[in-house]
Amino acid sequence: MMQFASPRADQPTHRIGEAVVTVTDASGAPLADTEVSVRQTRHAFTFGNIGFDFIEAANGEPRDGDEALAESYVELFNTATLPFYWGRFEPERGKPDTARLRRTAEWLRDRGVALKGHPLVWHTSQPAWLLGLPLAEVERLQRERIRRDVAGFADLIDTWDAINEVVIMPNFDNGDNAITPLARAKGRIAMIRLAFEEARAANPSVTLLLNDFDLSSAYECLIEGVLEAGIRLDAIGLQTHMHQGYWGEEAMLAMVERFARYGLPLHLTESSLVSGHLMPPEIEDLNDYRIPSWPSTEEGEARQADEIARHYRSLVGHPSVEAITYWGITDAGAWLGAPIGLVRADGSRKPSWHALHDLIKGEWWLPPTTVRTDADGRFGVRGFAGDYSVTVGGSSPESAICLSQQQNQTVHLTMEVEGQSQ
Amino acid sequence: MMQFASPRADQPTHRIGEAVVTVTDASGAPLADTEVSVRQTRHAFTFGNIGFDFIEAANGEPRDGDEALAESYVELFNTATLPFYWGRFEPERGKPDTARLRRTAEWLRDRGVALKGHPLVWHTSQPAWLLGLPLAEVERLQRERIRRDVAGFADLIDTWDAINEVVIMPNFDNGDNAITPLARAKGRIAMIRLAFEEARAANPSVTLLLNDFDLSSAYECLIEGVLEAGIRLDAIGLQTHMHQGYWGEEAMLAMVERFARYGLPLHLTESSLVSGHLMPPEIEDLNDYRIPSWPSTEEGEARQADEIARHYRSLVGHPSVEAITYWGITDAGAWLGAPIGLVRADGSRKPSWHALHDLIKGEWWLPPTTVRTDADGRFGVRGFAGDYSVTVGGSSPESAICLSQQQNQTVHLTMEVEGQSQ
Repeated sequence: MMQFASPRADQPTHRIGEAVVTVTDASGAPLADTEVSVRQTRHAFTFGNIGFDFIEAANGEPRDGDEALAESYVELFNTATLPFYWGRFEPERGKPDTARLRRTAEWLRDRGVALKGHPLVWHTSQPAWLLGLPLAEVERLQRERIRRDVAGFADLIDTWDAINEVVIMPNFDNGDNAITPLARAKGRIAMIRLAFEEARAANPSVTLLLNDFDLSSAYECLIEGVLEAGIRLDAIGLQTHMHQGYWGEEAMLAMVERFARYGLPLHLTESSLVSGHLMPPEIEDLNDYRIPSWPSTEEGEARQADEIARHYRSLVGHPSVEAITYWGITDAGAWLGAPIGLVRADGSRKPSWHALHDLIKGEWWLPPTTVRTDADGRFGVRGFAGDYSVTVGGSSPESAICLSQQQNQTVHLTMEVEGQSQ
Repeated sequence: MMQFASPRADQPTHRIGEAVVTVTDASGAPLADTEVSVRQTRHAFTFGNIGFDFIEAANGEPRDGDEALAESYVELFNTATLPFYWGRFEPERGKPDTARLRRTAEWLRDRGVALKGHPLVWHTSQPAWLLGLPLAEVERLQRERIRRDVAGFADLIDTWDAINEVVIMPNFDNGDNAITPLARAKGRIAMIRLAFEEARAANPSVTLLLNDFDLSSAYECLIEGVLEAGIRLDAIGLQTHMHQGYWGEEAMLAMVERFARYGLPLHLTESSLVSGHLMPPEIEDLNDYRIPSWPSTEEGEARQADEIARHYRSLVGHPSVEAITYWGITDAGAWLGAPIGLVRADGSRKPSWHALHDLIKGEWWLPPTTVRTDADGRFGVRGFAGDYSVTVGGSSPESAICLSQQQNQTVHLTMEVEGQSQ
């Protein structure tokens, strides 16, 4: 009877892969009835968060607590979204912040974190020096900036929010910017085409997303227009900032279902849940709510922990979802000053951090597990799609295997076993 | 100094056309210093309303007051929208109500009223016999019905709401219908393409509209997708049912501006204003508000009269608007039982009827006007685009001239003048 290294039984079956592994020694002889240790090393599913907080540490200006924050980060998250808001990235024309962002990307990559860039085109956080230029010049500069940054980070960043919040783009009126008039003149789909064609040209293997907070029929109509226009979307980005309260599994999955029908991967690109009081429901634009202090409370932290677990469990349970990016690791400097972090401003971990850890590194994770090979040197691994490490007898070099969702694989490992090779 | 027949000076200039007319007798001699009578006979602008109330009268089953109602109608409106709701038009498969609708169209045409059909594709008012058929069969039958009805009325109806309320179509869940699943499977743009290509094939000179009540960014996104897909829209249909209160000129024109940027004619396809209490603002789907009686009140009628004048004046003032269709002539049998009619259920005219008459047949209309030709037999006409009739000396046969918006024309009329030709 072959032994399987496998987590608890109640996993979402669409996330699970399986491998039957035959272990032989260097001479090809099966290592029968031998102890093997298996452990998961990475999720295929993207558990992301923003990496905005590590720019200083990565550039030799670490602040107190940065190393501990990084530990709290990499323990949960395998992907980081980095900020490429044009106005902040290139406040002075021709002097982009490329070097600092590259060092940040490398610093995170060295810690096992994959990278995503956000966003290439948006109407907010625009450089002041674009204002007043003719539209054709704005378009040319926008195209150049996309090519420059996608190419400049091609070795580090393989996923981009190509264009952000297009539904509102031509009607956006909260402050002057050069992109809204361009979007009004060209139309939304032409703007999307511009972003995708420049990014794709600069890095043909890149994964490109539309990203929006407007999840109404408007976004459906936009996506249908984009697909009819023959523009290839690699994934649909869905923002779910929940400062006004968790939407609940039912509403969340009904929304996901509406976008799942396009047959594209869905990325929950920006999720947040507060651990303090909720923003009043009458606020329409979250940015309009400004208060001097928004504390994290014990009651709020318990609620956030409960809700984040429900949120992640429901989304991981939907086959179309390939990524969830949370929008904040720490309350320090969090968007809108809201206590949406998973650690407090002092670096201590909130219940939400532990709740997420219980899922990502608990229920959905294979910890070091020992099995014995059968008479033919075989054992099995079953678990969440991702990377796994195998050692024989506790002392061999590690071998890596990779499980893919809903696939049964046969793997042959040749192990240099110490006891035998010496 | 040439004399002009011309209405008051404060007309929206983009609506105005002008002609300089030279009148000669049969021999070619100018009719100098001669009295000419000019009067407008028709507006080029579409002042429409529903023609649903005349089906009985047109089919030999007149009800009390139908003739008076028709008088109240044709005095204001030059176009009628006829009902082609599939479920009511063809309740039994293969037995469409073609003959009755044709007689109604002819009856209205004989009274100088042009015709529009509404709608060819919609998810509401669907035939029960479509339910349960395979999607491919539903699509085939939908295509056939479009061709049949557009071709069958090609001599009478030159304008159609090709497809109605597409924004909500794939998500519509208020009752089973066969169209929502088709829209979900094909996508919104494919549904629109289906409607437009079948209607266009059946009558290449037809004017085809998208029509929607959702005037949010969703409709913008849909239109942009349709235009990117190369589907030719002849006009954009905008519903403005205002049972919950008049939106005001500013909000209305801001909405119109958002859709004007596509450079297409705008048709306000369904406008209504109540002359009783307003529907509570918390009602989301107007169809959900059902009350036993919704009386027209004196106060409400005064408000409706004021608002309808403001509504029409603001829309006629916008150059992109080519049509306003009001959604009800009488309170009897009005949609939702609401007092949106311009005449009461007893046939008497409300203040709103008179307010609209003051505009359409008053301020924006050239009544019979006498001018004298100059020494070269010339006089001028300036007024709203439309048809005008000219007679010389009060006794000649009528000649027709047509003014087009923002055009200056030169017209030569040869008149058989009684006093001279005998």
